[in-house]
Amino acid sequence: MKKIFSLILLTLFSSLGHGQETDSSIVNQIYSETLNNAKAYDWLRSLCFDVGHRLSGSVGAEKAVVFAEQMFKEAGADTVWLQEVMVPHWVRGKKEIAQIIDSKNNAQNVPVLALGRSVATPKEGIRADVIEVYDFDELKQLGEEKIKGKIVFFNHPFNESYVNTFAAYSEAGKYRWAAPSEAARYGAVATICRSMTNTEDDFPHTGAMGYNDSLPKIPCAAISTNAANLLSRILKADSKTQFFLQMDCRTLDSVLSYNVIAEMKGSEFPEEFISVGGHLDSWDVGHGAHDDGAGVVQGIEIIRTFKALKIKPKRTIRVVAWMNEENGVMGGKVYAEEAARKIEKHIAAIESDAGAFAPYGFGLDMETEKQAKIKAWMPLFRRYNIWHFDYEHGGTDIGPLQKHLNTPLIGLVIESQRYFDVHHAASDTFDKINKRELHLGAAAMGAMVYLLSQYGL
Amino acid sequence: MKKIFSLILLTLFSSLGHGQETDSSIVNQIYSETLNNAKAYDWLRSLCFDVGHRLSGSVGAEKAVVFAEQMFKEAGADTVWLQEVMVPHWVRGKKEIAQIIDSKNNAQNVPVLALGRSVATPKEGIRADVIEVYDFDELKQLGEEKIKGKIVFFNHPFNESYVNTFAAYSEAGKYRWAAPSEAARYGAVATICRSMTNTEDDFPHTGAMGYNDSLPKIPCAAISTNAANLLSRILKADSKTQFFLQMDCRTLDSVLSYNVIAEMKGSEFPEEFISVGGHLDSWDVGHGAHDDGAGVVQGIEIIRTFKALKIKPKRTIRVVAWMNEENGVMGGKVYAEEAARKIEKHIAAIESDAGAFAPYGFGLDMETEKQAKIKAWMPLFRRYNIWHFDYEHGGTDIGPLQKHLNTPLIGLVIESQRYFDVHHAASDTFDKINKRELHLGAAAMGAMVYLLSQYGL
Repeated sequence: MKKIFSLILLTLFSSLGHGQETDSSIVNQIYSETLNNAKAYDWLRSLCFDVGHRLSGSVGAEKAVVFAEQMFKEAGADTVWLQEVMVPHWVRGKKEIAQIIDSKNNAQNVPVLALGRSVATPKEGIRADVIEVYDFDELKQLGEEKIKGKIVFFNHPFNESYVNTFAAYSEAGKYRWAAPSEAARYGAVATICRSMTNTEDDFPHTGAMGYNDSLPKIPCAAISTNAANLLSRILKADSKTQFFLQMDCRTLDSVLSYNVIAEMKGSEFPEEFISVGGHLDSWDVGHGAHDDGAGVVQGIEIIRTFKALKIKPKRTIRVVAWMNEENGVMGGKVYAEEAARKIEKHIAAIESDAGAFAPYGFGLDMETEKQAKIKAWMPLFRRYNIWHFDYEHGGTDIGPLQKHLNTPLIGLVIESQRYFDVHHAASDTFDKINKRELHLGAAAMGAMVYLLSQYGL
Repeated sequence: MKKIFSLILLTLFSSLGHGQETDSSIVNQIYSETLNNAKAYDWLRSLCFDVGHRLSGSVGAEKAVVFAEQMFKEAGADTVWLQEVMVPHWVRGKKEIAQIIDSKNNAQNVPVLALGRSVATPKEGIRADVIEVYDFDELKQLGEEKIKGKIVFFNHPFNESYVNTFAAYSEAGKYRWAAPSEAARYGAVATICRSMTNTEDDFPHTGAMGYNDSLPKIPCAAISTNAANLLSRILKADSKTQFFLQMDCRTLDSVLSYNVIAEMKGSEFPEEFISVGGHLDSWDVGHGAHDDGAGVVQGIEIIRTFKALKIKPKRTIRVVAWMNEENGVMGGKVYAEEAARKIEKHIAAIESDAGAFAPYGFGLDMETEKQAKIKAWMPLFRRYNIWHFDYEHGGTDIGPLQKHLNTPLIGLVIESQRYFDVHHAASDTFDKINKRELHLGAAAMGAMVYLLSQYGL
């Protein structure tokens, strides 16, 4: 039996090769250097306070590009460049009013944010009867007769039973993304949705939606969870309750923007690329601290740490701050299209876009065989509380690399309980970031990048 | 090979017995019920705002006892009682002043908290030269010649390289606990220590210290990490810098207080006990939300959840809100002594006293064989992100059970990055609690209690 266990252990460790001890020591150095000397937290503070939020096409996004370039240089990157990306330019406008109006004509304002891409209401706003639905089945059942001329209120709360809050987001998220067109199919004049969050508070959470071009485009907005609870209670007591929505958001002409890219050239296989990073754009509220300033500075930190430790990667590492993840993914698309055009060999891409909370694993969006190769490195990560290595979504910005080049994708998996408390809301601010959690994410990605750069995939 | 793997799997799962599927389903019900309907968060809000901090012997502690009894009843406990405990009664007093005074006699106040048990300074305070030391080796090297008549400043920061912040606390913590007597050995007149935290901010963090009775008792206090950094810089520039400390804290006569205990009687083995809970007392600043209001309400939640699910445990479950963990552990001692006197069979004790952040495992403070039995349940926990089952400290309040009855101890292991940001400081307030993280801890403990009550240990 002992012999067999040895055999199993041998199989488990064999892909680490003879360098196992060295790898363990280098991973340890990456963690120590990052936890003790990282600049990521300070960079993120500046990005939050000196730049602020930075929706694609905005002045903030323009400033963020300059800022990211500067951070890359501070980190000691060999080469930094900008990659041109045309991005959509949606603006919130100046007017955003939502009111619950009871049958006695008493109006009360509730916290609201237009969803990204939403069309405006008519100038004078829309006032209409409001009907609450839980899901698309209920919508369909109600049909045109009950929906026509009304504002549809999608009140689909997060399923609290899921331990991973991203599962709840996936499930409820379609009532943000697809609800306006689905409701327009039955003649709705606007939709409002319950904010996509676990908390009950007064922050509306925005996010992208997508119109079905074959259906009328109606305005759509998110109201806070407290407002959703209130509206639901009022509707039960007074079914003649109406809702008023007035928004002047609009889509302007696309704008030239940039991915910001830095490279550490590989010493042995410079033509093999590992891309790593997060997205530079954010929604137009709060600081975009967790989403995704964190991913950007964690990526840049990898360069600083490698330079400090004099690590010379065998394969080329590209740290990328992608533009326009939130409403178009144009940065990710352009990046992958150029890579495909140049027939570059992208052996892996890693993204951090799940917040800066404590990391506990990697989502492996790739073939089983490649997953197995990465899983063999698990023992190197265990002491740093990184234990979850399983199939999972890699990342939105790196998705196009998989589509064009079949690149294996890796997503940093983080403790998810607090993420949707602040996601896409004015509450996603720098004070919600814990320095050590942010730096642990940078270290985990740094260690993974190191191993990939040594051994390929 | 396949056969051997089956054998290994069989070994792994065998202790789950035939009820494995049922266990998995019940664990799932415990999680769902807790995540959806727990009252722990609301109870903790009340404990924080209606009671507030509650150091042993204080009016707050008295109120907390009444409050805990009430919560247990609300949770539906069959039996609730108070167990008498005489507790020490240390009070901070009204005066707490710390100043850095440079050689030109410029004084600046810095944030300070006397350490628990500290004696007062003379009424007019102590002003003396201050000497910074890193550790006891340095103190010894400096010796009486350099120390006598001075205030010793222990500036031992947390080691940021440790992923688990409790490791850093263990290491630095002795410069809070033992430093005053060690410095008094060489004639020091007072000690100040750098607060035990990873953050750099303005909150001093208090905590217990212990005098060596054979040495003079000198006053001791913690200053904030920002103040410690400042003092260290000033000392480097101006070695004639003095420090002024004035405190009127004192120890009064011991006071009668209580452990609050509730029981769910076992249906098959009522004479076998599983104790679970946290401590009701806290330091005398902030809300004591993470330390350890959280552990108390998580324990009580187990009763509510079990009642809601109509779970009838085979063995007796005792949920305990222990008194006086922070400065004496008298509640834990009395509880264990009474159990020993009555020759009760305590098969396991579980404590949550590491904050209400996301849980990820259990520390198993018991013989290897018993650890193995619990480790066999790991597959039941994995989908809830509970993966770490290893030897670790069980808990301070349950420690005496091990001493007297050799009871196996289990500590809830939580994500530790944010804990020492607020530990023993005015910043340990309710707003730092995430509802889902708190409830996940309750669910994890509930599931462990359920398995122990079914299968024993």
